[in-house]
Amino acid sequence: MEKKRILTGDRPTGPLHLGHYVGTLKARLELQEQGNEVFILVADYHTLTRGISAEKTKEIKINTRELLLDYLAVGLDPKKITIYRQSDVPAVAELALLFGMLVTVPRLSRVPTLKEVMRDEKIENPSFGLLGYPVLQSADIALVKGELVPVGKDQSSHLEVAREIIHRFNSEFGEVFPEPEALIKGDVLPGTDGKAKMSKSLGNAIMLSDDEKTVKEKVMGMYTDPTRVHSTDPGHVEGNPVFAYLDAFGQDQTKVSEFKDRYQKGTVGDVELKEYLASVLNEFLAPIRTRRQEFSKAADLDKILEEGKNKVLPIAAETLKQARRAIGIE
Amino acid sequence: MEKKRILTGDRPTGPLHLGHYVGTLKARLELQEQGNEVFILVADYHTLTRGISAEKTKEIKINTRELLLDYLAVGLDPKKITIYRQSDVPAVAELALLFGMLVTVPRLSRVPTLKEVMRDEKIENPSFGLLGYPVLQSADIALVKGELVPVGKDQSSHLEVAREIIHRFNSEFGEVFPEPEALIKGDVLPGTDGKAKMSKSLGNAIMLSDDEKTVKEKVMGMYTDPTRVHSTDPGHVEGNPVFAYLDAFGQDQTKVSEFKDRYQKGTVGDVELKEYLASVLNEFLAPIRTRRQEFSKAADLDKILEEGKNKVLPIAAETLKQARRAIGIE
Repeated sequence: MEKKRILTGDRPTGPLHLGHYVGTLKARLELQEQGNEVFILVADYHTLTRGISAEKTKEIKINTRELLLDYLAVGLDPKKITIYRQSDVPAVAELALLFGMLVTVPRLSRVPTLKEVMRDEKIENPSFGLLGYPVLQSADIALVKGELVPVGKDQSSHLEVAREIIHRFNSEFGEVFPEPEALIKGDVLPGTDGKAKMSKSLGNAIMLSDDEKTVKEKVMGMYTDPTRVHSTDPGHVEGNPVFAYLDAFGQDQTKVSEFKDRYQKGTVGDVELKEYLASVLNEFLAPIRTRRQEFSKAADLDKILEEGKNKVLPIAAETLKQARRAIGIE
Repeated sequence: MEKKRILTGDRPTGPLHLGHYVGTLKARLELQEQGNEVFILVADYHTLTRGISAEKTKEIKINTRELLLDYLAVGLDPKKITIYRQSDVPAVAELALLFGMLVTVPRLSRVPTLKEVMRDEKIENPSFGLLGYPVLQSADIALVKGELVPVGKDQSSHLEVAREIIHRFNSEFGEVFPEPEALIKGDVLPGTDGKAKMSKSLGNAIMLSDDEKTVKEKVMGMYTDPTRVHSTDPGHVEGNPVFAYLDAFGQDQTKVSEFKDRYQKGTVGDVELKEYLASVLNEFLAPIRTRRQEFSKAADLDKILEEGKNKVLPIAAETLKQARRAIGIE
């Protein structure tokens, strides 16, 4: 793959979980190791679109710290990539203001994630900022001239708006931004309760920072195959989160295949299976946990954000200047 | 009156007319001469909320020049007040982004001017920026910590949103901004066609920059009293734009009273009356025209905007810093 400029990121809402690893972190590590120009955005402004309060901004500070530790722990490396905070780059607000002229209210109202967020977070009336979430996201991408945006299969509608806005901009004012392409990478990991998606707010997540005991407890309480009453009943592997996790994290896939076989034949008990999964996950998480602990003592997280900011600011300034010139307001 | 910080401004849509003078310029001159801290915003971003294109931004540049010449011609003085361009102050975009979290989409959808603009400018689907017009306006006011905002009677709904947003901000994060108050000043001048309001787009306006001949032509073609067929019929003064103009611009109000008297008695012809009005308006406009011509040759308009920018930038930076600190993102 040709080396590309990539924008990705997270809202700082708390520590990350295995679902994030499978869904995005793993892909980011690959993109990093392939030598791409990866920008990871800590999207604090995006967090505020769902409600802004003094309490919320305090949480954001704590969560930003947790998020950075997770990044470092899984192996994202600020020497190879750029990690920066959205609110450290004022140009994004200016570009978003301009982009807001290029998209209509009905178009934004139709973005499916808006309705999902309103439902999930029990928001009756969206803030203007929440309606504008995809506009700000478009500006995030365009500001660093992102060419590829890794997205989950469920997030492509956000990128559609970005592509439309950028296309309209380029058509009217000349080619300033690359039209970003979605890089559909990563899988969706089910929750420990068997729900389709692992999510901290659903309480069905195993965090990257969970200790060994917590992981074991969560695994032992996991949802498996509800049709299987006795360990001698033949069970289903499909739709069984235990096997989804083994597929994702099992180092020894031959052994995983054996377990699948025995499970379908009714020759393995849930306890043995889950103990195996717990050991697999703890083996995967052990080095992450260790690194997390080391970084939490030694890493200067403020410095990482400071360096990220210093890398992005000149890029952002140059992009904004080009955009303003193209529009004719410079 | 205690000296106050005042924000006011115009979208650069073309040269100003007598309606602007009566509605706002006169009040600005008074506020200037009283020694208030007056900030006048050339709201180019606001213009783009109604459609953004390369053509539009070219127009904005031309119109900004015309607007500045009108300001100078009527006596607004950059040595006493601050004239600046919205797009020269990036902090406004950042503050608007934050303010957008503090107001809901339904609230903005209910602002009556939104529907008026959509109707008047034949906009089927508003851009996100147009819906956010009052948010950006709130940021304009708050950024310079405006205490008073001169508004026409028909514009108070915009200021209501600003007051609500700023009130919400202060309640949640501590007193950062003064809650701006509306200063209802100035009158509404009817159009030459008798319509309630003079407006360039309705083609019923006498521009401050119209030459003597044009003014006379426009006046001679004015709408008067449709119930008066002959000059010997008694006529109506109320609702007659000729008398509205004489009330506003007549230096000799005794003479104006005499004309009213004669008009109501049917002892003055339209031609005599209109010739008098033309002479009154041309007398009022003559020094404005002269100054306009002088300034268009000699004034360094870019320098005026540059100086305005340099005065506003540190104020804006300080306000934004306070806002970010209060919110907890600094």
